[in-house]
Amino acid sequence: MPESITLGKSELRKDARGKVTGAAEYVADIKLDNVLYGAAARSGIHHGRILSIDTAVAQAAPGVVRVLTAADIPGEPNFGALVQDQPALAGTLVRHFGEPLALVVATSKAAAYQAAKLVQVKYEPIDPLFDPIAALQPDASILHGTGNLISRYEIRDGDIGKGFADAEVILEDTFSVPLISPAYMETENSLARWNDNGTLTVWVSSQHPFTDQLEIAATLGLPPENVHVKSAVIGGAFGGKEDASLAILTSFAAWAVKGTVKLVNTRQESFWAHPKRHPVHFQFKLGAKKDGTFVALKAVAHMDTGAFASLGPAVGVIVTETLGGSYRIPNVDLETLVVYTNSPLAGAMRGFGSPQSHFAIESMVDMMAAELGLDPIEVRRRNILREGDRMFTGVVVNNTANSLPVSLDHAQEARKKFAAIPPSSGKVAGVGMALAMQSMGLGAKVPDNSTQRLKWQPDGSILIHLGAPDMGQGLTMAAEQIAAEAMELPYELVNTIGLDTSSSPNGNVTCASRMTYMVGNTLVDAAKQLKTQMLEQAARLLNRPQESLSYSRGHVITAEGGKIAVKEIISRAADDGIILQSEATFSFPYPEETTPQHLPIGMPHVLFCFGAQVARVEVDPELGTVAVTHLTAIHDVGRTISKIGVEGQIEGGAAMGLGYALFENMDLKEDGRWVDSFTEYLLPTSKDVPAFHENIILEIPEESGPFGAKGVGEVTVPATAPAIANAICNAIGVRIKSLPITHEKLV
Amino acid sequence: MPESITLGKSELRKDARGKVTGAAEYVADIKLDNVLYGAAARSGIHHGRILSIDTAVAQAAPGVVRVLTAADIPGEPNFGALVQDQPALAGTLVRHFGEPLALVVATSKAAAYQAAKLVQVKYEPIDPLFDPIAALQPDASILHGTGNLISRYEIRDGDIGKGFADAEVILEDTFSVPLISPAYMETENSLARWNDNGTLTVWVSSQHPFTDQLEIAATLGLPPENVHVKSAVIGGAFGGKEDASLAILTSFAAWAVKGTVKLVNTRQESFWAHPKRHPVHFQFKLGAKKDGTFVALKAVAHMDTGAFASLGPAVGVIVTETLGGSYRIPNVDLETLVVYTNSPLAGAMRGFGSPQSHFAIESMVDMMAAELGLDPIEVRRRNILREGDRMFTGVVVNNTANSLPVSLDHAQEARKKFAAIPPSSGKVAGVGMALAMQSMGLGAKVPDNSTQRLKWQPDGSILIHLGAPDMGQGLTMAAEQIAAEAMELPYELVNTIGLDTSSSPNGNVTCASRMTYMVGNTLVDAAKQLKTQMLEQAARLLNRPQESLSYSRGHVITAEGGKIAVKEIISRAADDGIILQSEATFSFPYPEETTPQHLPIGMPHVLFCFGAQVARVEVDPELGTVAVTHLTAIHDVGRTISKIGVEGQIEGGAAMGLGYALFENMDLKEDGRWVDSFTEYLLPTSKDVPAFHENIILEIPEESGPFGAKGVGEVTVPATAPAIANAICNAIGVRIKSLPITHEKLV
Repeated sequence: MPESITLGKSELRKDARGKVTGAAEYVADIKLDNVLYGAAARSGIHHGRILSIDTAVAQAAPGVVRVLTAADIPGEPNFGALVQDQPALAGTLVRHFGEPLALVVATSKAAAYQAAKLVQVKYEPIDPLFDPIAALQPDASILHGTGNLISRYEIRDGDIGKGFADAEVILEDTFSVPLISPAYMETENSLARWNDNGTLTVWVSSQHPFTDQLEIAATLGLPPENVHVKSAVIGGAFGGKEDASLAILTSFAAWAVKGTVKLVNTRQESFWAHPKRHPVHFQFKLGAKKDGTFVALKAVAHMDTGAFASLGPAVGVIVTETLGGSYRIPNVDLETLVVYTNSPLAGAMRGFGSPQSHFAIESMVDMMAAELGLDPIEVRRRNILREGDRMFTGVVVNNTANSLPVSLDHAQEARKKFAAIPPSSGKVAGVGMALAMQSMGLGAKVPDNSTQRLKWQPDGSILIHLGAPDMGQGLTMAAEQIAAEAMELPYELVNTIGLDTSSSPNGNVTCASRMTYMVGNTLVDAAKQLKTQMLEQAARLLNRPQESLSYSRGHVITAEGGKIAVKEIISRAADDGIILQSEATFSFPYPEETTPQHLPIGMPHVLFCFGAQVARVEVDPELGTVAVTHLTAIHDVGRTISKIGVEGQIEGGAAMGLGYALFENMDLKEDGRWVDSFTEYLLPTSKDVPAFHENIILEIPEESGPFGAKGVGEVTVPATAPAIANAICNAIGVRIKSLPITHEKLV
Repeated sequence: MPESITLGKSELRKDARGKVTGAAEYVADIKLDNVLYGAAARSGIHHGRILSIDTAVAQAAPGVVRVLTAADIPGEPNFGALVQDQPALAGTLVRHFGEPLALVVATSKAAAYQAAKLVQVKYEPIDPLFDPIAALQPDASILHGTGNLISRYEIRDGDIGKGFADAEVILEDTFSVPLISPAYMETENSLARWNDNGTLTVWVSSQHPFTDQLEIAATLGLPPENVHVKSAVIGGAFGGKEDASLAILTSFAAWAVKGTVKLVNTRQESFWAHPKRHPVHFQFKLGAKKDGTFVALKAVAHMDTGAFASLGPAVGVIVTETLGGSYRIPNVDLETLVVYTNSPLAGAMRGFGSPQSHFAIESMVDMMAAELGLDPIEVRRRNILREGDRMFTGVVVNNTANSLPVSLDHAQEARKKFAAIPPSSGKVAGVGMALAMQSMGLGAKVPDNSTQRLKWQPDGSILIHLGAPDMGQGLTMAAEQIAAEAMELPYELVNTIGLDTSSSPNGNVTCASRMTYMVGNTLVDAAKQLKTQMLEQAARLLNRPQESLSYSRGHVITAEGGKIAVKEIISRAADDGIILQSEATFSFPYPEETTPQHLPIGMPHVLFCFGAQVARVEVDPELGTVAVTHLTAIHDVGRTISKIGVEGQIEGGAAMGLGYALFENMDLKEDGRWVDSFTEYLLPTSKDVPAFHENIILEIPEESGPFGAKGVGEVTVPATAPAIANAICNAIGVRIKSLPITHEKLV
């Protein structure tokens, strides 16, 4: 491999200074003239029929410009990424606490929020459902006309009856994981301006501005081209910003008052009304031979998707596909039920179903090892997927699986090292590990294209028109590094222009651990085109045969070895009205011949990332407190684009996994209120993350990826919680089957 | 002084184990049969006329037993410690955000809170007032029939015109301090049971159960003797639990449903609807001679007392009396205005006005020293009150003032030591100090008696019937130590029985830095009686002349030196139906000849505690962050009863002062909502308190106190914030005039 220009280095993110100094413009920071403020009147109950909404008093309140209800919506009343089941404003039924019922537009934020309290809503309350199993009972009240079961996925492979008959040991257990908030720093917000020419400009903090554009247009009955969506700086998303509700409400308000309106959710509103990670209840039955070989798995997952579908059905796909973890299990019977309840809506969140399944399967694997008296790493080694293995979806796993045995070797070494460390006084130490599998991409049969544009600038630098938003994770940096590498230019000479649906190519939604992969592929392709364009122009302008010219590191090289700086060519081409720019589209590959076709839409996924994490914990056996002192994270990234970016993803993902393991729980409190502030929703702090954190980054090139790269954004999360749970069991012998592992469960 | 038995020692609080293990029964922990749960429907607006309250939907909601409104109250609709201006449930006017409008009684807490959201309230909103100066303008809306000015205090002494004419330097400035929440761990709660015999038993977490008894009885139109109030364990109060609202609501509910009802405020409700420390705006004008001698002070304080009086008028007294700090100022013109607004109600909170005034005056003193080029400690030394000085209220200060020069000596030493410490890298260090004055007692003309009862137990131990609640500060321990000392018995042989208004003597409200003093005095007196009773009984039973007997350390001593254990006498007396117990009442002393009589009720205070605190800070000049690295607290306590108790009061008070200085602020947010969670209301943590904390405890006996003791509960707070502000100015030259000192104010 020739020495790279920028790949694998830790470049400085170009947005770093702005974010650190506060100069970065998030939506809430954008100052426009004559801005009005919106506030939603939100339901204080979980479930009920709306008998009436009286806005008269609110309308008359000081500073109020307009109070809107569902009746004022000119277009489609409902929206939704997969199912149009979510009212922009509830009109007939309240399905969850905090659901927006009316929208106040006022001259100040305080006036808007105060007037929202003056909207008079009459309900007929209905007993709320918070349990997906109860919500499937025949007498349960129905949230949506289609019934409470929104999706059911079943995968049967091999012969489950024979599998269990062959099993020498069978373990059965149940596991549960709680409702999790993405807890990004920037709450949801949006700003919309109605323009005199009948168009709307909307600034969003969103993972999918092009979807927002369509959903806004549908709600307002406008042609999509009249809606311009601009991506502002995003302060974290983790999946929670694959939701158009704020963009729709703000646009609706701006349209209604023919003005400019800003909405910024309070933290409480963010907790109540934006997508969360699904709580799931699992029933597992795993059969193995005495040597540890898995022979059969039966699993049922009940997912509480809350009041609206959001991306719940798609999450159900990944839950199902990851129920068996990174293992080859010949006989499976897997079932996932995605169920409407009156919980807050659950949708996309980092890991997208995989963290849930992994807590169950990776705990089961350790339990099976214990039952058999075998080393849990050894048991994993006997069962991991190998290159060429047929997964239960029918997908044949590629060379990516070669990272698994290597990861186990590293894990074994880390475990040995950790096990030798004596515990602190009064504490009991333990070491545990878990594997993680995360698919990339949206799944078969889901349209998944991404387009980017590259442009030579007059100064010889490159401008990327990125078609997908950087949600804070560093997509821009990765794109710039890939483009720089592909264009043989230093990183500093590549810049990115923010997404605007009226001028940017459609890069599709930022999600599913596939942005470096997809955007990178488009940029490699576009760069190739751009270099060709350069040589064409150089040939024309220098009047030489194109074959006699070559491109190298910002220069056109003549046959004689002469070097002409590209900006000369760019400038002369510009004089002739020629702009050098290229666009490339990449479609996520699901080759028909190798992609099983019998499964429902969104299934199967065909490309995977694997990883392993090893945790050392110290448990205070009297208090039940747990400190994760050491963590080794082993992840295959195909090829490192940004070293600091990959490290950040791993460390951030593991911290999120640690919060999942020990602290986070958006619980329903005794007073019937969801946990809705960071006083009760406990995120891990810098004090909680392990003092020793080691990243072992593997690079097994993904053939279809840019420079061999694949995703690392999500696979860093699922192993952490089961590794910690396994370490706790190793320390004190207590097997935890529900997250979070609060100290009450350990004493 | 003979060696004491227990005084000055650090005994183990008898409630310590229960509190640490969780065995202590707070109201919320008490389990009764068939308990129902209450939840208030609370106003979401700040100010408005109530047009209608419709409870029909809430009444029909699942689990709801009864929904009550103001119309259901059988007795007095309003309550209040000083002014009956606070409706138990608002009926006609909403005066603050979070005001209770209706009360739902349901079979579960969740059902109660959900149904509370179903209460339909129609308002006509009124522009809210949050600024006490604006609330006094002629066009301001009026919160109460008596107008928005609830109290005005004026003290004029000397000749202010001549004073300023004589001044060689005059400084004028304004200061402001924010709304502060007492932020105790246990939110307000109450439990009430209607008994078949027509009586009500109420468990409260309250500083004044005897007042609760009267207020409950008045609200329900019951004779007070039918209401039994029991004091449960209290998880902190700091003044915020001198409020009967929860006790009244719970009792009202129990009375209405003829059952048992529990109310436990959420943290949010606690922020919204329980008394806070007043925000105050100060205008100061201080005149001095060039040598630093103060000659004139003109000061105006505008206090925002919020929607209801609570103890605001009484706080206004202390604000006024402490405007001049610990200084002798011959010519003063002081004015305090206590004003109704739509802010949360402000009332009693630790320091009771003194922390507010001290931030202003102690900053002014340093500013004056800087203006004159004098040492701020030296300026203080020239102006401090001395024994025999006449204060501007006309009170002649007693020997307590002798602690002031000694405190300044210690402060000077601490300052020297702190100033020699080099700052951490990149930080700028500074040292500052402030004095503090806190009065004891409720003020002249306010009835202020306290009664306690002592009883010999059959085993020779002593039982205290404490008539005032221990709010967590350790009153019980102090009482037991004093009683033990007075009875010449070991601490272990004195125990306390909890307060029950149906059987306990009336010890009056726990507040005003006077509990050790008052309760101690009653116990010393009661002990004396009890010893006399013992000798009487011994004389009778032994058939000896009483003069031939004496009492010593649990024994009766005969003339011949024989020792009879008291339990012998107790047992034989009991056989004759005689129980040895005594009761004593102490009245806070305001001798008519030495207490000026021209002032309004509650003025003047005549007994004082003084102290000084010296802080070293390190400021990061780029970030504006402040770390208080060192603190020396010098406090005169008259006589230490419990060493650990006094140290705890000082360290806790200084931590509260540190929070006041740097973090705490119950602010009105941009969306018109009060800060109402600990995510935004930042309390100091263990990381924020100084790594070096030194207590210098002075013991200048208070002649009228038990064993010379006086109060230390509040004086520990007021010096901290100005000492820190003065230290910051010393470090970086920035003079801060408003709290909290957030980093934005320093860069």
